[in-house]
Amino acid sequence: MAAIACFGELLLRLTAPGRELLLQTPRLDVHVGGAEANVAIGLARLGHDASMISRVPDSPLGDAATGHLRRWGVSTRGVATAGGRMGLYFLSPGAGARRSDIVYDREGSAFALAGADDYDWDQLLDGVGLLHLSGITPALGEGPARAAQAAAAAARSNEISVSFDGNYRESLWRRRGVDPRPILSSLVAGADIFFGNHRDISLLLGRDFGGDGPGRRREAAEAAFEAFPRLNLIASTARHVEDSDRHRIAARIDSRDGAAQTEEVEVTGIVDRIGAGDAFAAGILHGLRQGLDLDDIVEVGLALTCLKHSLAGDASLFAERDIQAFRAGELDVRR
Amino acid sequence: MAAIACFGELLLRLTAPGRELLLQTPRLDVHVGGAEANVAIGLARLGHDASMISRVPDSPLGDAATGHLRRWGVSTRGVATAGGRMGLYFLSPGAGARRSDIVYDREGSAFALAGADDYDWDQLLDGVGLLHLSGITPALGEGPARAAQAAAAAARSNEISVSFDGNYRESLWRRRGVDPRPILSSLVAGADIFFGNHRDISLLLGRDFGGDGPGRRREAAEAAFEAFPRLNLIASTARHVEDSDRHRIAARIDSRDGAAQTEEVEVTGIVDRIGAGDAFAAGILHGLRQGLDLDDIVEVGLALTCLKHSLAGDASLFAERDIQAFRAGELDVRR
Amino acid sequence: MAAIACFGELLLRLTAPGRELLLQTPRLDVHVGGAEANVAIGLARLGHDASMISRVPDSPLGDAATGHLRRWGVSTRGVATAGGRMGLYFLSPGAGARRSDIVYDREGSAFALAGADDYDWDQLLDGVGLLHLSGITPALGEGPARAAQAAAAAARSNEISVSFDGNYRESLWRRRGVDPRPILSSLVAGADIFFGNHRDISLLLGRDFGGDGPGRRREAAEAAFEAFPRLNLIASTARHVEDSDRHRIAARIDSRDGAAQTEEVEVTGIVDRIGAGDAFAAGILHGLRQGLDLDDIVEVGLALTCLKHSLAGDASLFAERDIQAFRAGELDVRR
Amino acid sequence: MAAIACFGELLLRLTAPGRELLLQTPRLDVHVGGAEANVAIGLARLGHDASMISRVPDSPLGDAATGHLRRWGVSTRGVATAGGRMGLYFLSPGAGARRSDIVYDREGSAFALAGADDYDWDQLLDGVGLLHLSGITPALGEGPARAAQAAAAAARSNEISVSFDGNYRESLWRRRGVDPRPILSSLVAGADIFFGNHRDISLLLGRDFGGDGPGRRREAAEAAFEAFPRLNLIASTARHVEDSDRHRIAARIDSRDGAAQTEEVEVTGIVDRIGAGDAFAAGILHGLRQGLDLDDIVEVGLALTCLKHSLAGDASLFAERDIQAFRAGELDVRR
Amino acid sequence: MAAIACFGELLLRLTAPGRELLLQTPRLDVHVGGAEANVAIGLARLGHDASMISRVPDSPLGDAATGHLRRWGVSTRGVATAGGRMGLYFLSPGAGARRSDIVYDREGSAFALAGADDYDWDQLLDGVGLLHLSGITPALGEGPARAAQAAAAAARSNEISVSFDGNYRESLWRRRGVDPRPILSSLVAGADIFFGNHRDISLLLGRDFGGDGPGRRREAAEAAFEAFPRLNLIASTARHVEDSDRHRIAARIDSRDGAAQTEEVEVTGIVDRIGAGDAFAAGILHGLRQGLDLDDIVEVGLALTCLKHSLAGDASLFAERDIQAFRAGELDVRR
Amino acid sequence: MAAIACFGELLLRLTAPGRELLLQTPRLDVHVGGAEANVAIGLARLGHDASMISRVPDSPLGDAATGHLRRWGVSTRGVATAGGRMGLYFLSPGAGARRSDIVYDREGSAFALAGADDYDWDQLLDGVGLLHLSGITPALGEGPARAAQAAAAAARSNEISVSFDGNYRESLWRRRGVDPRPILSSLVAGADIFFGNHRDISLLLGRDFGGDGPGRRREAAEAAFEAFPRLNLIASTARHVEDSDRHRIAARIDSRDGAAQTEEVEVTGIVDRIGAGDAFAAGILHGLRQGLDLDDIVEVGLALTCLKHSLAGDASLFAERDIQAFRAGELDVRR
Repeated sequence: MAAIACFGELLLRLTAPGRELLLQTPRLDVHVGGAEANVAIGLARLGHDASMISRVPDSPLGDAATGHLRRWGVSTRGVATAGGRMGLYFLSPGAGARRSDIVYDREGSAFALAGADDYDWDQLLDGVGLLHLSGITPALGEGPARAAQAAAAAARSNEISVSFDGNYRESLWRRRGVDPRPILSSLVAGADIFFGNHRDISLLLGRDFGGDGPGRRREAAEAAFEAFPRLNLIASTARHVEDSDRHRIAARIDSRDGAAQTEEVEVTGIVDRIGAGDAFAAGILHGLRQGLDLDDIVEVGLALTCLKHSLAGDASLFAERDIQAFRAGELDVRR
Repeated sequence: MAAIACFGELLLRLTAPGRELLLQTPRLDVHVGGAEANVAIGLARLGHDASMISRVPDSPLGDAATGHLRRWGVSTRGVATAGGRMGLYFLSPGAGARRSDIVYDREGSAFALAGADDYDWDQLLDGVGLLHLSGITPALGEGPARAAQAAAAAARSNEISVSFDGNYRESLWRRRGVDPRPILSSLVAGADIFFGNHRDISLLLGRDFGGDGPGRRREAAEAAFEAFPRLNLIASTARHVEDSDRHRIAARIDSRDGAAQTEEVEVTGIVDRIGAGDAFAAGILHGLRQGLDLDDIVEVGLALTCLKHSLAGDASLFAERDIQAFRAGELDVRR
Repeated sequence: MAAIACFGELLLRLTAPGRELLLQTPRLDVHVGGAEANVAIGLARLGHDASMISRVPDSPLGDAATGHLRRWGVSTRGVATAGGRMGLYFLSPGAGARRSDIVYDREGSAFALAGADDYDWDQLLDGVGLLHLSGITPALGEGPARAAQAAAAAARSNEISVSFDGNYRESLWRRRGVDPRPILSSLVAGADIFFGNHRDISLLLGRDFGGDGPGRRREAAEAAFEAFPRLNLIASTARHVEDSDRHRIAARIDSRDGAAQTEEVEVTGIVDRIGAGDAFAAGILHGLRQGLDLDDIVEVGLALTCLKHSLAGDASLFAERDIQAFRAGELDVRR
Repeated sequence: MAAIACFGELLLRLTAPGRELLLQTPRLDVHVGGAEANVAIGLARLGHDASMISRVPDSPLGDAATGHLRRWGVSTRGVATAGGRMGLYFLSPGAGARRSDIVYDREGSAFALAGADDYDWDQLLDGVGLLHLSGITPALGEGPARAAQAAAAAARSNEISVSFDGNYRESLWRRRGVDPRPILSSLVAGADIFFGNHRDISLLLGRDFGGDGPGRRREAAEAAFEAFPRLNLIASTARHVEDSDRHRIAARIDSRDGAAQTEEVEVTGIVDRIGAGDAFAAGILHGLRQGLDLDDIVEVGLALTCLKHSLAGDASLFAERDIQAFRAGELDVRR
Repeated sequence: MAAIACFGELLLRLTAPGRELLLQTPRLDVHVGGAEANVAIGLARLGHDASMISRVPDSPLGDAATGHLRRWGVSTRGVATAGGRMGLYFLSPGAGARRSDIVYDREGSAFALAGADDYDWDQLLDGVGLLHLSGITPALGEGPARAAQAAAAAARSNEISVSFDGNYRESLWRRRGVDPRPILSSLVAGADIFFGNHRDISLLLGRDFGGDGPGRRREAAEAAFEAFPRLNLIASTARHVEDSDRHRIAARIDSRDGAAQTEEVEVTGIVDRIGAGDAFAAGILHGLRQGLDLDDIVEVGLALTCLKHSLAGDASLFAERDIQAFRAGELDVRR
Repeated sequence: MAAIACFGELLLRLTAPGRELLLQTPRLDVHVGGAEANVAIGLARLGHDASMISRVPDSPLGDAATGHLRRWGVSTRGVATAGGRMGLYFLSPGAGARRSDIVYDREGSAFALAGADDYDWDQLLDGVGLLHLSGITPALGEGPARAAQAAAAAARSNEISVSFDGNYRESLWRRRGVDPRPILSSLVAGADIFFGNHRDISLLLGRDFGGDGPGRRREAAEAAFEAFPRLNLIASTARHVEDSDRHRIAARIDSRDGAAQTEEVEVTGIVDRIGAGDAFAAGILHGLRQGLDLDDIVEVGLALTCLKHSLAGDASLFAERDIQAFRAGELDVRR
């Protein structure tokens, strides 16, 4: 099967150990993250030929990030070194009634400083069947924004599918100080698959879809399909947070001529909620590439996002058998 | 705003890591505790000018305890070194159906050996607007008991408000071998604010207030207001323990002419239940000093005690924005 | 009271720390296990004179396993060194929707290589009042199978009671490649007490007892009592797994002329589910040897298995007072 | 005695645990550093009234840095929050034949972005008897450079002594892209005490002092005294690195009319070499303020720098009794 | 061979991790110590039938201490629970030029509070061939002092050899406030083997033996043999401390008609110096009971004390093969 | 440059943390090893295109081993999964006078069970310029021995150079129970480069070369060149072990018409001595492929083996700049 390429920033997450506050004791656990890298790892672990396209500094930090991707099976031939720092973020993991708290420290990163000309897209996309992008990249600066657009354009001209995860981060856009709508809309317009809910579509179309029910979601999906003729799939989750250890999640997928919606699942004993959306995207893409029908695709996406909550680190590391065990409700010790 | 002084013993808590039993593996995590110190830290983190009055040994242990208070913003000019050991306690943290287990090892501490004459109250209370004491101090010995009374007397003669947390510890009183009632009553009599529930008031007044409902609590509060003319606020929580990870808590505050009572809140995913009562006291005092009305004060107290359960260590480290997020139900990751 | 001897393999469990996957980070926590050793430790901690009979390699690994048993009060005079490796197993502890995963690595162990002639049963059982065996031992090879039979025969000829825990492990039997039924049946036939449910009895008797209710369990018990004339007690738990952190458990005991069945208990905040069945066996044997009636025996068994879930490691380390606190519902901090 | 104020950047050091390479395993130990902060802590631990003047971001990272200083006795009233990041550096600690390796990540820090107008020097230096600066500050940018000059000017006009540690960091100056000589010379010209060796003086005066012997050092010192009329003390160490665990160190101090030079000391079993120069400065200032003669001052400086190598973290935490034990050669366990 | 009984206090050592200062970070590693317990463990690991006689509190702390002894092969039938606390001591391990620092916290321990009548010596010494005592016990209080004398008397009347390690701890005697000489002399007078050097003998006999050479040591030994007619062996080490990681050690043994003295050995890369003297005593007793001649006995003692420095914890855990490898100079990896 | 392929077993090393004995505390650190894998990683880190050929079980353990190789830049397309266990070994790291101690647990591994037919050598060696083997592989069983011979034969017929490291492990050969000489000789006969000293050559040729000096080594090299006509380079180190933390090492290389020999270097502060020989082989191969002359090649080999001692784990992770810093004597902090 043709390879999947993910383009985006690699980050190091520095996390307080246990359920401590940041630097309550002087130790940090380190994980490698970045929304698109999480998708790449999640897909590679499910057996796909996944590769990353990014820029990191020439330092032990950049080295650790690319090494991490290789460890989990992602090709890093598309990750070059460049000037700038390593993007970081610091996490105080939540617990009970206390929510998780992130301090971003990614300004001036090698990826944010790189521009569209730093990538040779025809070479990087050679042999690729699907390109995955996210809305974080254009929020990082003019260079990344143009690079994302160039990547999408190159994909289109090479007949490569494009998957785009909205991943709207208000704080990053505020810091960048530009209107996110035009650039996000152009990227969605170039995508075949869009990860986002009715609120994301509202933002893109400048139109309110009201409440939270499936009806509103279908209405928003149809509006998006109308606005973006290339688009043929929209997937999203709906999450209710009871406390930091207990969420309820449902998943939904809309095609132009149908939709599938899961029951709401209670996710308890949450170990690490970060990257759950990226795991969902990986699950949906996995289901799609296996040729499943919508009902199964959305269940696979739900399975992977639920499972991700049980795992420390930003990316899903699950295999097909874990998805099957989840769907079969097999929960006691496997000996 | 005038400063808050807390008088009491500083303790080191030595805790089994994870959810292990004490010395199941040969490692201990160390936290700094002491009921009054927890209140001081909780208030300092909320922006108050808080100071500690205590005695510790001249050793790395005493040094670590005072340094911890300074780190979290508490003035330790009132903490001198003195003969005696460092008070310790050992904790096996509970889990699920197994409750937490404490082994006290605080006899012969520098604080317990110090007497009333070791403190120059007029100097120590200079610039202070509120003095916080607890019922643990008189349980530690004759010297601390007299020191607490002298502190309260000095506060009164300097027109400083007094807050008193009953903190009735039967095992400490049994070990000391004296009747707690006279000394506790005299301390409550000198206080403006009392932290204790109807069972504490029963003990003080030698009178039973029956069951557990709000009616009983109001009846007890009114009896206390009658018995202790200086008293004008009584605050307490009611806790139901489902298991070591899940409690239900409600909070209540009574003034002479009104009361406020919260809904019961379920606290799940408990990380560390120790010091929850001290966090409640800090929250109530914080609300009071902000000039809130009773309904808001008791919600702030409830918020801080609930949040404390999510945090390792004896003291609340939360800021105003954490209280607001709790009250607004904001529970997903803050990016 | 006469001593209890447990015969079986000692294992080292190598566990991913926290809730990580195996080798997600390069560290392993080590616990000592083995079904029969867990029973021995559980009983020793409750004050019984318990001893272990086994074989370990002459290495730091074998040494650590026997030292662990001694630490927790089990006599290891019956544990000799022998050729072969140390039996190991690796555990990825489950969390939330992800189940625990075990990789066995016990082939070629000193215990599996030892044969019936390697043990002098008359000497090993001197002073013993109860011998505890399990169905894991015969699954490990011809030698252990014969040794278990010889042990049971020696017990019978010395008028020592025999307790047998079915512990049916399909993967071990598949690997050994023999039919488990004859050897398991002969061991149950020689036992006074059998730990197993209606599905275990189905396997032994080649007869289906249908669904899951108490009626089916009594029917199965009566069939077992008829088939195995020496047998006089059958005990088992019924477990429903909600997720890796939350199970529901009920316990049941059947004698020839009566039965006792507990309510189903919800076990939340699970720290370590491994060894819960062995803790149940230890609890039942503890209750029996205290001369309790069936209702109390089964409650003690339930208490010990529930408590075990709160504790890292394979064996129950609880004392009588912990059982009493559980039964009394005492769950808040013990100071 | 009048207080000592230290002005400079606060940094977090993120260190690979043990003797690992950075991110060889995914964990980092955190220490608080910054050359001037190390001097402040070193002096506070020796009983001096020391304070820090700096800028940190309003985040858990900035909070941890200031809290660390308070823990160890440094006043942080002069540390305000400001826009910008927290300055970081990453360390792979050396071992044997492998040297330590630092990755700086301090660009865009709150301190580097602050300018001269952000500090009210008359207020910040109120009650101060000695101001300590270093050559790192002007290397961080135009703003810090001007702030350092303003601080020195304010000190002079308030008759406060100035101590200046050259701390020449070529990589920082290269990155800033300006000639270090004019600004460093102006800061030395305003100082009473200069920490630097003959190579630093060569750089300042543009004149070579040849080899490495005491004669060369005296010649350089005399040239410096001539060039900088306010200067009255110059102190430095000479270090020979055998391997990462074993250095040889000698110390020297020159006044206008005398000098003292220690024997070379072998420092073995090095735990952490970072901050050794700052510990030397703290030791010299401690000796000076105690009114010792040159011979004793330089021995105190040598003692503190040698002792620092035995301690994890950037700053000396030693007390007077540790200096005395070192000078007396007391090396076996103190019971 | 007849068993060896050791009588003395069990302690928990709480140690800063790595080479940190106490509570520099909030974690403590825990080891079990006590001079006599260290000898018991050292001997049990070498294959001897060793038992401990002591008192500990009925708590997880006392439990951990006795469990530790059992793990390493020491019988704890002579360790009962009693009122009082667990004796503790805190250690900042030294490094390089910084020496190790101990904070004792053993006052009021269960052992210190126990008196002579609390032990039934005839029963405790049944089957014992050698009783080992040390000079720490009488320094802990009147009760322990009398108990030690009663133990020695019972040993004599049962024709059991007595070994006595002087272990002179000035700080403990100062705290107790009595003259150590009479009680120590009476215990040496009752011993067959004495561990102590010429300075210890000076203290006992009130006579100075001048310098440090072998001649002085022989002179002191002869004086001791004359003063204490029962004594027939005296053993000691001479230690020169280069720094916390590097010591030089020689060992010596004197009998009434001969002596053996080793070369001085350089001990580098020291991991843990605590308990080195107890390992020496265990080595000498091991050599003696093997019937070796003086030259070999003293080499075995030297081997065990040198090896102990390489091991974390208070007691030697070495086996005979480790002693032989040390004596043969086998130092590269054993595969 | 043509790729380098390494064929051999992958192992997991389970190590006691710090300098503890195995299971002194219940934790193990995990590293990935195997002599040939160490060479592959060492070369990949120096920029070579290195790949591994091996077999591992289909489990998280096998997965971790291959993932580790990928992380550090080694291609694992030649590592397939197969039946059998994961090869393990346990290490107690030495310290001071105590030597390191290894417990092998590699019998029955997937690699040991694989035979010659399990590998398609023509495909595996496609594009390869150098094949590296070691004498450990034939010691593991008949299958690996034949596979190694088939690999060497395939290399010869494809004009691929062969490098062979003797790595004589007596305990493995004893366990296998066959004469190592014929098979080792046949493998050396097929090699271009041989890593081994005069003792290894003695074993192969059945001829003694007497003492330890350079003359003996040249004599042995010449005898080997005569016996094995294809051989053109022999390299080895000479190691003197002072204690576990301090070795002295010299390196030598012999060609048919010349030789180069380094000075002896003292390696102190040893962190991990395991894999030092593999790092030497990687260094020599690195020098060779850079086209250096013998003097430089042997210095590069010496540099890499010395540096390896400073690093935890089995493989060298050093880059060219580290070799250059070592050779230039740059030892202080690199900022």
